[in-house]
Amino acid sequence: MSFLVADTVLVAAATPVADVLLDLFVLLLAAKLGHELFERLRQPAVVGEILGGMLVGPSVFGIVPPSEVVEVFAELGVVFLLFWVGLETKISELRAAGRVAATVGVVGLVVPLLGGLALGTSLGFPAGTTVFLAAAMVATSVGITAALMLELGMAGTRVMNVVLGAAVVDDILAMIVLAVAVGISGGSVDVPGIALAVVLAVAFVAFFAGVGTRLFQSRPQLLQAPRFSESPLLPAVLLGLGLAALATNVGLASIIGAFLAGMMLAETKEHTPIEQEVEPFYAFFPPFFFAFIGMSLDLEALADARTLAVAAAVIAVAIGTKLVGSFVAALQLGRRDALVVGVGMVPRGEVGIVVAGVGLGTGAIDTALFSVVVLMSVLTSVIAPFALRALVSPP
Amino acid sequence: MSFLVADTVLVAAATPVADVLLDLFVLLLAAKLGHELFERLRQPAVVGEILGGMLVGPSVFGIVPPSEVVEVFAELGVVFLLFWVGLETKISELRAAGRVAATVGVVGLVVPLLGGLALGTSLGFPAGTTVFLAAAMVATSVGITAALMLELGMAGTRVMNVVLGAAVVDDILAMIVLAVAVGISGGSVDVPGIALAVVLAVAFVAFFAGVGTRLFQSRPQLLQAPRFSESPLLPAVLLGLGLAALATNVGLASIIGAFLAGMMLAETKEHTPIEQEVEPFYAFFPPFFFAFIGMSLDLEALADARTLAVAAAVIAVAIGTKLVGSFVAALQLGRRDALVVGVGMVPRGEVGIVVAGVGLGTGAIDTALFSVVVLMSVLTSVIAPFALRALVSPP
Repeated sequence: MSFLVADTVLVAAATPVADVLLDLFVLLLAAKLGHELFERLRQPAVVGEILGGMLVGPSVFGIVPPSEVVEVFAELGVVFLLFWVGLETKISELRAAGRVAATVGVVGLVVPLLGGLALGTSLGFPAGTTVFLAAAMVATSVGITAALMLELGMAGTRVMNVVLGAAVVDDILAMIVLAVAVGISGGSVDVPGIALAVVLAVAFVAFFAGVGTRLFQSRPQLLQAPRFSESPLLPAVLLGLGLAALATNVGLASIIGAFLAGMMLAETKEHTPIEQEVEPFYAFFPPFFFAFIGMSLDLEALADARTLAVAAAVIAVAIGTKLVGSFVAALQLGRRDALVVGVGMVPRGEVGIVVAGVGLGTGAIDTALFSVVVLMSVLTSVIAPFALRALVSPP
Repeated sequence: MSFLVADTVLVAAATPVADVLLDLFVLLLAAKLGHELFERLRQPAVVGEILGGMLVGPSVFGIVPPSEVVEVFAELGVVFLLFWVGLETKISELRAAGRVAATVGVVGLVVPLLGGLALGTSLGFPAGTTVFLAAAMVATSVGITAALMLELGMAGTRVMNVVLGAAVVDDILAMIVLAVAVGISGGSVDVPGIALAVVLAVAFVAFFAGVGTRLFQSRPQLLQAPRFSESPLLPAVLLGLGLAALATNVGLASIIGAFLAGMMLAETKEHTPIEQEVEPFYAFFPPFFFAFIGMSLDLEALADARTLAVAAAVIAVAIGTKLVGSFVAALQLGRRDALVVGVGMVPRGEVGIVVAGVGLGTGAIDTALFSVVVLMSVLTSVIAPFALRALVSPP
């Protein structure tokens, strides 16, 4: 993207990197203007950021093209978001929510899975396609809900802890579902391989949630040793980035690693300075995540009646099954809190898009169905915030 | 880059984005360990960061491959570095350094240009190659010196202001030289086009340094209006990114825009909170810039006698001409300060690499000569800090 006459003269100066700088600027500005507008209208700000991204993305004005760099910024956005959430979460409180969270994670994933399989079969899709569609419908994007709950002042509440714990369980199960879907699509399911991956993932979470969260309490000097920052910021950020990268290498989402890293630091005495210094990253990166979700929507691909009908069915099943499954599983919290948990688990965000992208790569999903899944991901991420806001802070 | 068994099972989860996350983590860690080591050895920390990048880059261990994402982080690194320098720079003080700075900018560029042309001719290079080699030898990378001067506590000193002002002049002139080099290499020099580009660039600098720096003093509400951040951080960062992107679109380096943006904010009353909140970015991004310079070095390409001889000549001319030209031009500051200015102008850093990359693109420069220029850029960036440190804070 470039817009001035000098470019035609000085081709040399207009490097691709310079173009990317402008893309990042426009995307951040659009997301933040959307945020501002929605906040003034007393609507969920994250939805404003998603719509800002949609407006500058390929579907509407086409100012910012999708690129790997934008995708990496989106990834760092959700990584810093969950790192921040981790910083605000006490492992003891999360543990207290453990049993309910696990139930919500399991039931809230199995019901949409069955719903997706039934839907795909009834629409007459081949088995490989049906399994991928179902896989794309199961996993919650905790980023949307977490940002919204922070916005609504719910950090540290039992309901938020249940949603966070459920998201961790959800992500491990979703990994299994995706691996099975890839296997079925490729002709064979590698059962020992999947079992090994699950063991690794569970060990990763257990190790960092168990041993890791005690590490800095028993050895605070680890955060103070380096001179390269007079503050504990860089060791903290390196921990967040490192665990995020490590998580993806055991098959989990990067945000699980970032969340665990945040929790490891949450109960240290450096917690307050770290939080102060991480806050600018929390302000800067996450808008790219939300804007990227909006950018991913391809409105043109949806402009035919059959696709729209499929989309309507997928969206209805995706919302209904996740809401009912999670609500029932959380009922011991009381009807109102269970409803908040159910609504909080609805957004699919980037997770559905990533899974559908894998299906597109293996050929199990065609571009029309891919667009349907993206629409489902965006709409569940846009609708849930309105519902949650109405439930939690009635006008 | 990926290192765990789960990857082979769960291809699906190991997206390219996840790999990039790991690359960024390793690069940041390597740069910061180099920083730490050099600080403990009482050596310039920026050199430690450059060497850290070299070690994990393709030349030595090959852990982090070059990629567009890494390049964008390097660019953001130098953008946030100069944005930070701008925040520390008062326009009034920079203006006081104006005449000396302009002289240093002009003389410190013309002497290396003549030196480069003479060297290329005496080595028997064709005209197109000679012009590109000279163009790659002229422009100072102010990032290295600025970081080092901040490290040595020289923010706001007259010497630093002279170097900063000279860097702005230097960049405008370097743009002309590069445009002429591209023209000669392409067979025709577009004189009206270059003139227009120069007018645009000068107008850009004059407008933001003149009108821009008074903007927020007369209208402080501009920084407070948005609700999306309760602090002025995001408007400030958007200004920095926006002017950086705009600068590249008028043919200037992005850092000129970032520097001007920083100066626009330097004298506002929000200066202190902005500085506090931008500091984490200043800690996070610039290491990627320094590490990337180190990564760019291709030691293998230099392993032949003829290339090494050319490299030695290029490096000697690059250091000698810049040092002498800038020193003489700055003599009115006194011999010692003139020497500090001269040494401060020596690092070529990313600028030489970018110009040589353009020459590689047009075919004027071959891969061996490209590696020579990169070696020159890296070595001038590594030697100057040692010299500057010895001059400014003798052991």
